[in-house]
Amino acid sequence: MAETLTIALDAMGGDQGPEMVIPGAALAAERHPGFSFLLFGDQAKINPVLAKHPKLQKVATVRHTDVAVAMDDKPSQALRRGRGKSSMWQAIDAVRQGEAQAAVSAGNTGALMAMARFILRTVEGIQRPAIAAVWPTMRGQSVVLDVGATVGADARQLLEFAVMGEAMARCLFGVQQPTVGLLNIGVEEIKGNESVKEAGRLLRELNLPLHYHGYVEGDDIGKGTVDVVVTEGFTGNVALKAAEGTAKQISSFLKTALTRTLVAKIGALLASGAFRAFKDRLDPRKHNGGVFLGLNGIVVKSHGGTDAFGFATAVDVAIDMVANGLVAKISEDVAQVNALLTPAATAATAAE
Amino acid sequence: MAETLTIALDAMGGDQGPEMVIPGAALAAERHPGFSFLLFGDQAKINPVLAKHPKLQKVATVRHTDVAVAMDDKPSQALRRGRGKSSMWQAIDAVRQGEAQAAVSAGNTGALMAMARFILRTVEGIQRPAIAAVWPTMRGQSVVLDVGATVGADARQLLEFAVMGEAMARCLFGVQQPTVGLLNIGVEEIKGNESVKEAGRLLRELNLPLHYHGYVEGDDIGKGTVDVVVTEGFTGNVALKAAEGTAKQISSFLKTALTRTLVAKIGALLASGAFRAFKDRLDPRKHNGGVFLGLNGIVVKSHGGTDAFGFATAVDVAIDMVANGLVAKISEDVAQVNALLTPAATAATAAE
Repeated sequence: MAETLTIALDAMGGDQGPEMVIPGAALAAERHPGFSFLLFGDQAKINPVLAKHPKLQKVATVRHTDVAVAMDDKPSQALRRGRGKSSMWQAIDAVRQGEAQAAVSAGNTGALMAMARFILRTVEGIQRPAIAAVWPTMRGQSVVLDVGATVGADARQLLEFAVMGEAMARCLFGVQQPTVGLLNIGVEEIKGNESVKEAGRLLRELNLPLHYHGYVEGDDIGKGTVDVVVTEGFTGNVALKAAEGTAKQISSFLKTALTRTLVAKIGALLASGAFRAFKDRLDPRKHNGGVFLGLNGIVVKSHGGTDAFGFATAVDVAIDMVANGLVAKISEDVAQVNALLTPAATAATAAE
Repeated sequence: MAETLTIALDAMGGDQGPEMVIPGAALAAERHPGFSFLLFGDQAKINPVLAKHPKLQKVATVRHTDVAVAMDDKPSQALRRGRGKSSMWQAIDAVRQGEAQAAVSAGNTGALMAMARFILRTVEGIQRPAIAAVWPTMRGQSVVLDVGATVGADARQLLEFAVMGEAMARCLFGVQQPTVGLLNIGVEEIKGNESVKEAGRLLRELNLPLHYHGYVEGDDIGKGTVDVVVTEGFTGNVALKAAEGTAKQISSFLKTALTRTLVAKIGALLASGAFRAFKDRLDPRKHNGGVFLGLNGIVVKSHGGTDAFGFATAVDVAIDMVANGLVAKISEDVAQVNALLTPAATAATAAE
């Protein structure tokens, strides 16, 4: 990699905008010395913060924009108001123009996906994009997709998600053959809805170059049974938020219990190092960054409410994907799958 | 209630059969002195255990059966092998015949639902049954349905689930007007799939006698935002298991952290009372019992791997439903809804 790789940042995204994005970018820049950054947004707000981070300043270029997409803009509104001139639009457009290899925004998900699809278009052979989340598990981390881009994905789309998620897991975890599971409500072949059953059949019968594990259930996600969990956007979104809700609920129960008596408080104080290690493993900032898959370019969505540390994680994810050539991997894999899915190949497989 | 109310138990269900079911029934019998019990199963296995619980023995009748449905029987297999003569079949059939007011089994869910539908049939006006789970929340408990009976429920069926879940919440929590939410991936009207959007429209526009809160998201379940969360069986099942998986994962992280150093161990020892209180709130045995809704009779499914304490909770749930006349409530409510859903009423509502 002789040329400098560049990450485009929507400096206006998130609840706090440049106050959070710039320090986050500074953290990421320090961890990845080879990368440069394009910062899109209001220069009057960006420059004073950037001045406090001289190391980032050396590798960053500010591009002024007048318009910022609001956190509560509807996707259609954002496209209308923000087209061409918003920080979000320009960050994504820098990827299309080849000025940057990935864009990161903590702005609103619907607007970001609408713009990303409009500007970058889906990869040849991919019907619909997916958003992939990085989920902390008992064994480390897994990729779960789709968590909200494509509601009601059909069998073919689920198959595409499997291929894209597997490519992402290779980039993110550095494993040769990540395992892929299809989310279902039981592990027997007859379980599930038609899309899942048909996707399961395709994954079993087509000779895809990926390690298909079979069906997994909701509790397999946290167990880390597979590296990649594939599902359609409605179920994936609900599962992700239900798990986040449970984590918050349990933390709150624990806090209540440990502050009830003096002895409990003393015990908690003695165990405070242990609690820090425990909290650290669950820290949502360490798993921040939803990757948009299936587009001609990398776009990563950071949580809007995160801090600099969390935003830096999302930038790290983008950098991992760029450094490992995610988009090229997906294009190659999808071409392979499409060759297998031509009517002749499918018939041959069915006849075996 | 002058007549004695009776609960039919499948004594052979669950991983441990009578060894777990009988002590569980004994616990429940002690808590509910007015109730009697019909125990179906192998008398050679039941009687020795029953002899150790004289109080239960006084209010229990054993009905011998030769056949038990296996935990891994497929529903079709179970119906074929177990028809008429299995403990599971006979327990449900006792409800149909009016000998018992509810049946409880820790046997396999698919077989239990298949038999319950076959024997009890759905309530007039209800298209499909649902399984309702009792979910621990920050504010207490909520009813979540469907968690696996009806995959891909349509708008009309979601509406029926709302009505049935609301009736169950009234029986279980003793509140007059439980709040009902529709599970979605955002709270705006345009979010979700077609079934959810249409169910949302019906719940907003029909003047149903229930307190409709609107859309809720995955993390609202654990928060306890509403008393009743309505969704179709695939998403509900995945959400429930994802939350259970997260709870196990966090407990395991906590255990690892607290046993790493001596100081942490001492702290944990001092805080052991607090940890007990914490574990107690999350104890799955206290939230055991999936209620089959929409059938002409009450059937409660206990976890197969639970112990006597957990099984007693499932029996408690059945008793609550019987004592509060759940089936009659559902029939009345559904008749009301159907009247509102006649073409004329729907047109009138739409024209308002």
